[in-house]
Amino acid sequence: MEQLTSSGKITVSWHHRVLKCRDAFQAEGPALASLFQTEEGPSRVLIVIDAGLDAAQPELRANVMHWMQQHPEAVTPSGPPLIVLGGEQAKQDHVVFDQVVQAVHQRRICRQSYILAIGGGAMLDAVGLAAATAHRGVRLVRLPSTTLSQADAGVSVKNGINAFGAKNLIGTFAPPWAVINDATLLPTLDDVFWRGGLSEAVKVGLLKDPDLLTMIEESTSDLNNRDLDAMERIVTATANLHVNHIVSGGDPFEISRARPLDFGHWSAHQLEQMTGTRLSHGDAVGIGLLIDLQYAALELGASSALVNRVADCLASLGFPTHSDAMTDEDRLLEGIERFREHLGGKLAITMVTQPGLSMEIDQMDAHAVRQALRLVRSRGQERSLRAG
Amino acid sequence: MEQLTSSGKITVSWHHRVLKCRDAFQAEGPALASLFQTEEGPSRVLIVIDAGLDAAQPELRANVMHWMQQHPEAVTPSGPPLIVLGGEQAKQDHVVFDQVVQAVHQRRICRQSYILAIGGGAMLDAVGLAAATAHRGVRLVRLPSTTLSQADAGVSVKNGINAFGAKNLIGTFAPPWAVINDATLLPTLDDVFWRGGLSEAVKVGLLKDPDLLTMIEESTSDLNNRDLDAMERIVTATANLHVNHIVSGGDPFEISRARPLDFGHWSAHQLEQMTGTRLSHGDAVGIGLLIDLQYAALELGASSALVNRVADCLASLGFPTHSDAMTDEDRLLEGIERFREHLGGKLAITMVTQPGLSMEIDQMDAHAVRQALRLVRSRGQERSLRAG
Repeated sequence: MEQLTSSGKITVSWHHRVLKCRDAFQAEGPALASLFQTEEGPSRVLIVIDAGLDAAQPELRANVMHWMQQHPEAVTPSGPPLIVLGGEQAKQDHVVFDQVVQAVHQRRICRQSYILAIGGGAMLDAVGLAAATAHRGVRLVRLPSTTLSQADAGVSVKNGINAFGAKNLIGTFAPPWAVINDATLLPTLDDVFWRGGLSEAVKVGLLKDPDLLTMIEESTSDLNNRDLDAMERIVTATANLHVNHIVSGGDPFEISRARPLDFGHWSAHQLEQMTGTRLSHGDAVGIGLLIDLQYAALELGASSALVNRVADCLASLGFPTHSDAMTDEDRLLEGIERFREHLGGKLAITMVTQPGLSMEIDQMDAHAVRQALRLVRSRGQERSLRAG
Repeated sequence: MEQLTSSGKITVSWHHRVLKCRDAFQAEGPALASLFQTEEGPSRVLIVIDAGLDAAQPELRANVMHWMQQHPEAVTPSGPPLIVLGGEQAKQDHVVFDQVVQAVHQRRICRQSYILAIGGGAMLDAVGLAAATAHRGVRLVRLPSTTLSQADAGVSVKNGINAFGAKNLIGTFAPPWAVINDATLLPTLDDVFWRGGLSEAVKVGLLKDPDLLTMIEESTSDLNNRDLDAMERIVTATANLHVNHIVSGGDPFEISRARPLDFGHWSAHQLEQMTGTRLSHGDAVGIGLLIDLQYAALELGASSALVNRVADCLASLGFPTHSDAMTDEDRLLEGIERFREHLGGKLAITMVTQPGLSMEIDQMDAHAVRQALRLVRSRGQERSLRAG
């Protein structure tokens, strides 16, 4: 009955660029400016800054404006920086999204103009959705301001906000114009956010690069002493592995089901939800890794030594290795179902069995998960007692 | 100062499919069902129907549900059809968008599930944005229900809603999973919507296919007599030219500036705005074509005969060939500036000088535009007097 009248392949390409630097807006050289300059002259730029970062580094606003004034050949600010809520609040509803879309409209930002977004992962998620949808897409330059966002979300091609009580219910895949990882944004972070990216680094090391895992283990005291060079090395290595996965993984927009970088995340997301985000994402991921590794030790042949090694590493970096929320096993197990729904019907969980060696499973045995939860929790408690 | 740490090309491909049929949901064959069936079994489907269409064809809801019940191997309805506002109201704010996103969440529609949207262009735009952003993209099957949407927006890769008083301020580029042009949705349209797609057909004929223009001219009496075969032929030819432009035009997501299918649209959009959309999009495009053709006759060597030929064709199809809003020349001319802003900085307007022959200009002479407006208006008035 039906006839195909027209058909064809639509192919679109983007260039994904991640740069690193120090003091981005005090640089004399033209490298950063050249991101914005076009053949036709300077580009209009809407600057958006995370309120948390603005409070921690109050000189940043002036530095950005000063840098812009020094590069009139490349950039034209569309007005003073727009300061928006940071942290999970930024994506809790559409307030930040609306503020940015409205500014795009009022300040005459067009599809060839830029949004320069400086802030943490949640703020970049909300601003990124606005950039991806205002005029069907304005160019976005991200400066992630936390170790977690520099290592992970800030270099990703995703954005999103929460809606109707569901995390990241509204979002898009949209490659940024460029990402600039500026290490000088990091020293003002508190301890939780300073270590925040390191559990993702451990995760990516476990999945893809055993040398990164070793590098983290050898850097623990430097990292705990706030050595910026050490942090920059680990953040850069982690970010590069993420970018490589996006660029070479064959499915940058996750059109198929597998999402092999989500190791440890079904429980991390659920723990965040259960604790009302009192547990930071970085801390939750650390615990999530231990749960999945312990499961892999029980069911898939991973060694107990690996579980202990990772627990030692995380603990030495200041991460909690268990959470009281783990006692509510029933509710935590709902995270598996939620994750399945999020993926779309079929479950696909990546499990690490040795550093650098992973496999995908399509179901988890509930009994073994409960056992893993108890083991992780009792060892975490012992560790706390010893440390205490 | 800055160092590129990581970089790569992200390439994503989609298959763009347009099918035509009659009585889509009464078909016995498996062709439509096969769009939904996967190796793992049937897919969950959220059905969304335009309230205007639902009122005109009240049996449609039951037909869709009945069809689904007959194809359990392919589809699982997620509940009864969601009926949403149609017409420009659908995209005036985020009400329809929110309804669809909420239904996606409540009915457990995932990234491998489908939204089956049946309605006019504006409703498809709003539902399309919801489909493109809920869970960062749910598969969308569109059944456009007007001649305009079957010929144009319904087969496009765009969606959008209005915000802060700006048309299409929020939207994305998102190829649909499939588009099904079902001619049996068209006979219940009123005269304005029945002819609605024909001015776009005339436009595409002028730009790309002189034979289509001739086909329309030779079909006027059939079209005026509501001959469905004649309409389907013209809609199909127009839709195919649109799809071909998207697939082969080299810039499906309009990342560069040129948008060569926007001929006649700077004034059409402005006239719609000025008349509070009392002028339909189809009617506004007809007048917009005459304004740009007249300008091309004054400035770019197009013939007066072509202007008259197109005016005759449009008039014989029932289109108005002028509007009283054209007397407010200052305000109408603001449409050029708005169009420039929409494109991003640099103006690029496609002008037709002969059927099948177009050129791009980067500015319009205001004096000549005013002259064109007066000529189109006075000829339109003469024509009305003769007809009256």
